[in-house]
Amino acid sequence: MEERVQLSILLDIYGKLLTEKQRNVMELYYNADLSLAEIAEHTNTSRQAVYDIIKRCHMILLQYEDKLNLMKDKKNMEESKKSILNFINSLYRSENKELLDKIKNYIINNI
Amino acid sequence: MEERVQLSILLDIYGKLLTEKQRNVMELYYNADLSLAEIAEHTNTSRQAVYDIIKRCHMILLQYEDKLNLMKDKKNMEESKKSILNFINSLYRSENKELLDKIKNYIINNI
Repeated sequence: MEERVQLSILLDIYGKLLTEKQRNVMELYYNADLSLAEIAEHTNTSRQAVYDIIKRCHMILLQYEDKLNLMKDKKNMEESKKSILNFINSLYRSENKELLDKIKNYIINNI
Repeated sequence: MEERVQLSILLDIYGKLLTEKQRNVMELYYNADLSLAEIAEHTNTSRQAVYDIIKRCHMILLQYEDKLNLMKDKKNMEESKKSILNFINSLYRSENKELLDKIKNYIINNI
C-alpha cells in the first residue's frame, strides 16, 4: 500500500489517540494535502515544528498498529465481507431473491 | 455488564498498550483472580503499589475504550454475526444444505 494512503487510514483509525494539535496537523497534511509551509502558516507554528509533529505522529500511529493491528483486521474483515457476499450471490434463485437481497443489505450495512 | 468481566474484556483488547509490568499485574488480578496481597508477593512490590497500578490501569483502559470503542464494536459485530447466521438458517432446504453449511462455517471462522 502507498505510504500516504496507509498513513491516512491509520490516522482515521487511531487519530483519536493523538492530541488535538497533532491530529490537526496530520489531517491537514494527509487528508487536506497541504504543504508543510501551508500547515505552518495555518497553525501559527514553524515549518520545522510541523515536520517534527508529522514524523513523530507517523511513528506513534505505526506503533499503535503494531500493537493493536486494527488496520490489518479491517482489511481482513473487508475480504471476509466480499467472500460472504460472493457466497450469497451463488445462492440466488427466483424464489429466494427477496430474502437474499435482505441478507445482502444486512451484511453490507452491518459488517 | 459486570465491572470485573468488562475490565477483563478491555484488558484483552487494549492490554498490549499497557507496560509489561502493568499488564502483568492486571492479568493476575482480573484473569488469574489473585488478591492484592498475593500479587504484591508475586511481583515483589507493595500491596499499595499493586492497588495503585490497578486503579490507574482501570482508568487507562476506560480512556482507550472511550476513544476507540473497540469493545462496543466487538459486541455489535457479535450481534451481526448472530443475525447473519439466523438469516442463513432460514434459507435451508435439502438441495442447498451443503453450500449453506459452507457459508456458515466461513462466517463462523472469519467474522
